[in-house]
Amino acid sequence: MTSTAEPRAAIILAAGQGTRMKSPLPKVLHPVGGRAMLDHAIDAAEALGCERVVVVVGAHSPEVRAHVARRLGEDCIAVQDPPLGTGHAVRAAESALADFRGQVVITYGDVPLLRAADIEPVFAASEGVRVIGFEARDPGAYGRLILKGDDLEAITEAKEASPEILAISACNSGVMAAPVGLLFELLAEVRNDNAKGEYYLTDVVELARRRGEPTRAVFAGEDAVMGVNAQAELAQAEALFQKVRREDFLATGVTMPAPETVHFSWDTEVGAGTTVEPYVVFGPGARIAPGARIRSFSHIEGARVAGGAEVGPYARLRPGADLGEGAKVGNFVEVKNVAMGKGAKANHLAYLGDGEVGAKANIGAGTIFCNYDGFFKHRTTVGEGAFVGSNSSLVAPVSIGAGAMVGSGSVVTRDVEPGDLALARGQQTAKAGWAARFMETMRAKKAGQKGKAG
Amino acid sequence: MTSTAEPRAAIILAAGQGTRMKSPLPKVLHPVGGRAMLDHAIDAAEALGCERVVVVVGAHSPEVRAHVARRLGEDCIAVQDPPLGTGHAVRAAESALADFRGQVVITYGDVPLLRAADIEPVFAASEGVRVIGFEARDPGAYGRLILKGDDLEAITEAKEASPEILAISACNSGVMAAPVGLLFELLAEVRNDNAKGEYYLTDVVELARRRGEPTRAVFAGEDAVMGVNAQAELAQAEALFQKVRREDFLATGVTMPAPETVHFSWDTEVGAGTTVEPYVVFGPGARIAPGARIRSFSHIEGARVAGGAEVGPYARLRPGADLGEGAKVGNFVEVKNVAMGKGAKANHLAYLGDGEVGAKANIGAGTIFCNYDGFFKHRTTVGEGAFVGSNSSLVAPVSIGAGAMVGSGSVVTRDVEPGDLALARGQQTAKAGWAARFMETMRAKKAGQKGKAG
Amino acid sequence: MTSTAEPRAAIILAAGQGTRMKSPLPKVLHPVGGRAMLDHAIDAAEALGCERVVVVVGAHSPEVRAHVARRLGEDCIAVQDPPLGTGHAVRAAESALADFRGQVVITYGDVPLLRAADIEPVFAASEGVRVIGFEARDPGAYGRLILKGDDLEAITEAKEASPEILAISACNSGVMAAPVGLLFELLAEVRNDNAKGEYYLTDVVELARRRGEPTRAVFAGEDAVMGVNAQAELAQAEALFQKVRREDFLATGVTMPAPETVHFSWDTEVGAGTTVEPYVVFGPGARIAPGARIRSFSHIEGARVAGGAEVGPYARLRPGADLGEGAKVGNFVEVKNVAMGKGAKANHLAYLGDGEVGAKANIGAGTIFCNYDGFFKHRTTVGEGAFVGSNSSLVAPVSIGAGAMVGSGSVVTRDVEPGDLALARGQQTAKAGWAARFMETMRAKKAGQKGKAG
Repeated sequence: MTSTAEPRAAIILAAGQGTRMKSPLPKVLHPVGGRAMLDHAIDAAEALGCERVVVVVGAHSPEVRAHVARRLGEDCIAVQDPPLGTGHAVRAAESALADFRGQVVITYGDVPLLRAADIEPVFAASEGVRVIGFEARDPGAYGRLILKGDDLEAITEAKEASPEILAISACNSGVMAAPVGLLFELLAEVRNDNAKGEYYLTDVVELARRRGEPTRAVFAGEDAVMGVNAQAELAQAEALFQKVRREDFLATGVTMPAPETVHFSWDTEVGAGTTVEPYVVFGPGARIAPGARIRSFSHIEGARVAGGAEVGPYARLRPGADLGEGAKVGNFVEVKNVAMGKGAKANHLAYLGDGEVGAKANIGAGTIFCNYDGFFKHRTTVGEGAFVGSNSSLVAPVSIGAGAMVGSGSVVTRDVEPGDLALARGQQTAKAGWAARFMETMRAKKAGQKGKAG
Repeated sequence: MTSTAEPRAAIILAAGQGTRMKSPLPKVLHPVGGRAMLDHAIDAAEALGCERVVVVVGAHSPEVRAHVARRLGEDCIAVQDPPLGTGHAVRAAESALADFRGQVVITYGDVPLLRAADIEPVFAASEGVRVIGFEARDPGAYGRLILKGDDLEAITEAKEASPEILAISACNSGVMAAPVGLLFELLAEVRNDNAKGEYYLTDVVELARRRGEPTRAVFAGEDAVMGVNAQAELAQAEALFQKVRREDFLATGVTMPAPETVHFSWDTEVGAGTTVEPYVVFGPGARIAPGARIRSFSHIEGARVAGGAEVGPYARLRPGADLGEGAKVGNFVEVKNVAMGKGAKANHLAYLGDGEVGAKANIGAGTIFCNYDGFFKHRTTVGEGAFVGSNSSLVAPVSIGAGAMVGSGSVVTRDVEPGDLALARGQQTAKAGWAARFMETMRAKKAGQKGKAG
Repeated sequence: MTSTAEPRAAIILAAGQGTRMKSPLPKVLHPVGGRAMLDHAIDAAEALGCERVVVVVGAHSPEVRAHVARRLGEDCIAVQDPPLGTGHAVRAAESALADFRGQVVITYGDVPLLRAADIEPVFAASEGVRVIGFEARDPGAYGRLILKGDDLEAITEAKEASPEILAISACNSGVMAAPVGLLFELLAEVRNDNAKGEYYLTDVVELARRRGEPTRAVFAGEDAVMGVNAQAELAQAEALFQKVRREDFLATGVTMPAPETVHFSWDTEVGAGTTVEPYVVFGPGARIAPGARIRSFSHIEGARVAGGAEVGPYARLRPGADLGEGAKVGNFVEVKNVAMGKGAKANHLAYLGDGEVGAKANIGAGTIFCNYDGFFKHRTTVGEGAFVGSNSSLVAPVSIGAGAMVGSGSVVTRDVEPGDLALARGQQTAKAGWAARFMETMRAKKAGQKGKAG
């Protein structure tokens, strides 16, 4: 992906307060495709081969700081405090890059759709300042790029622009690259003698030109550079993200009668020849092999589904669910942290949590793996070819042997040996005529109540 | 909201047969946003401060009449019989307003999106006849407003209009206001010497001008004045309604990755910082506090959810479900008329009906509150910190004490004291080798059948 | 539907490999509206009154061959091997039509939306060659129709077309009709002296004109003639199909607040005055009577629902479910091959498979019909007015008599007589203080583990 041999670094600005989101969650931690926007930005930087990634966080966001620390380590955090503009934010990263020599790109924690391939052209040149622009459908308040060819003569803020300049549709995305030395030299010259008293990163362009440094623009799509500042924009970014994923999966041979009703995560894998019916939601970590069938109203996260397996409708696969070839998980069934062997089945109304189910075993309707005692989780093992009758409760830790059977409605608390039948239920008794008498009494009572009420 | 000090009244026309709906339900009782269209019209009239609201119903619709009687009382009903046009319909309300002095606005039971704020401008003047117009994207068969400034010179029906007049896009919504005395005087002069033999309300404009009364138009958005005459239009009104609600919730800080898949009711409340995942349906009466999480495929009506609570995926909350802070209702769980304390959990496949669950209590997978004996409903109480094992049946009326436990698969018919363990299940027995023999026999039998079939 | 008295035959081309689908399923077997595209083409041919239908399949698709054999019989299959163009494919059908005299129409197994009514105009004439054209929004690579009036002078392939001809928006759908004799005579003259070495069906037009035979075009809508070559096009065809069905159902009086979220099959029937809430999926074979209510998140296939019945939310009706008047199937309930009488109810979390439920019977929450012993399916019968308590397991074959009751949590293995009460569960016992001691011990253990981990 690299087009220059020079080392690369990224500074990701993530210090904005995001007040327009009106959400207690810091803006850059809001997810797109099930992944925090900030992580999308870090992903892009890493995919670009950046050997250093510095995230500039605000003093107001301990969650963002903690998030970056977990993923990249404390060294990769720079704090901007107080917030005095984008130029000021970038300068906050200067010390973290003190020993870095090479090209630096500045990206944003709230621009989730910008991929490495969109940014790469900014590295085609290694001199001067390079900016990513975009053609805006509605340029509105965006800074305009004053271009001569791809020579960037200036960036003019909309509020300072003449009508002729406002008519320009080439706009500034805010993404910029420059040699690290040049970048920080220029930033040191940026002044805050403006209405807001802020240091603007865009001023770097004019300062570079005064020095005779080249300044250029490369272009990306408007969707790719969209920034998220409000919930409606987050939803819009999500919609654009889903649109691309849906088109990608269709192109690779996934059958989806209503692709607009299937929601993917950033890391969902679905193999060719798999059918995904309407209304399926994939959370992070779902891997569906070729030739599976995911039926309507299923919800799948952190689970693996092999070829020939069938899931749903109304199946919920949670992390650690691992369905073998031809396995079947049917309606109103939840599977969590259970490996199901080839051809194993749980077709109706069951909860399978923490354990394993052998090949061709059949878990009857209404069966519950009682995996939790209120304090600890325990495992249930069902052997190959075993048959667990409906409405059974398997109280873990417990093991049902291969080829064993459990009678319907049994509460199994002790292991069942292979080939044995386990029963744990009361004897059936009948009270002759009791129901008839009860119903008659109750009907009379009900009629009496109505009489009083009337 | 009032801009004149004069008393206000509303006449809501709801006498149309709605035959194009092809539905046994009277047209104006079809819901938009979970509320009958007629109620939206009454809501708007009440929000305008109308001290009198008269609904004109047809003789053919006892359901509409009953609906109005329940909400407003018998005094507020006027019957139009037979149906002889809109002017005739308004006259039907005359006697109900005999003692009213002030301004009257005429609205419609099948115009569900018209809000008080849209109608208010019609009260800016208090003299003459004021009409709400709209700019039509496709004027088609609508009556055209012949305007000089906001002076309304005439309303011309499309079928009587010249090509020049047909080119006018300002159209008549049918909503009209006038002083009550003037209105009924003018209506008394309206004639039915037209093709259909009907009395048209719009004739009032020309009659007013003949008297030298001022006639004016104010404008509302086309969407706001849309009338519903067919199922497709009802669906369109619903879509417009949902669009506005979704935008409103995003603007107030609700996170929705796919807002177009969330369906609200007219009275849904959702707090800022709450996430609503794709495919959630809110029926009437849902109140979700800030900071909750509503997961995919949930269905919520008449329920309250506190902050930090998590609902779904696949949770159904019915009227009277009341989830405390941090409570959790998981997949395939139905809760009806049950208050759940702080941190209480019912994570899988359960029915909780009629009762209460104490703070931090855990309801195991597959648990059923057996609240119905076929005649009456009874209550189940689960105390604070109690642990109800999976697949249990709690036969109401019954109480599980604080900190008590119920063994998996138990049928509990008597109260359990605090701190006790209740068990109600059969002893586990094993029939050695039984399953192996059974399976062998059955396999043989099955093979035999296939042999015969072949 | 026939406008000429001559016998009709159809040749359906279904020999394409469909490699762009990237799916192991042969292209023409991919469904639209729950029905294989090829079957839609056969349906149209049959609706046109074709007495002979020949499907041309490729040697590479035994599944397609088997599919046709099952529906039409072996006589109706022609094999094209190897694939040498559309003209070559049609010739493959010649021997199958050796004894046929009349008009032949050539259609396609991957054009699923073309209905008999769209094709019918091609039979208005009985002489010469008639082609179905369409006005293309984006003509691109389609063959252009060179027309003088409806006289078709030529079909020009896009790659051989001059700019003037490329500007023509009238395009060739590929559907063609001609007298059988003429058709095969012309085809015998078609040469493969082109870049690909293939025999093109379209050459027939020029050959006919050389003979002085009339050649004409009739027109169909672009959507109707759309061909499916990739998954994205399949999804597009499905969307068009659904749009038409939704509009049709709205027009007939079905109430759908969000019609775009309801997915129909080709053969779904829904009566007027029925409400279908958001997010409902109909598989093949669903018949819903007027005046029913289908609530959100329901999935219905092969089932019948009578008037006044209510289904869902979250109900799954599978083949053979047959709900009587006023019956109710509620949330997380699956019904398969069970007839439910008038007013019968299964409101929560149940599996009803193979059997019948009498009028007004009540099936409690969590009840399972244990219909499967691992080898065979058995039937459960619940009599009129019976009351089956929650969490019961009815082990089939078994019968619950009319007016009988089954106590909650019972496992019923023997028949219950009418009016009797059956109980099959353990006695409730209490271990005083056990839970309190257990919880204390476990809390200590958990604290200990955390201590070690820390």
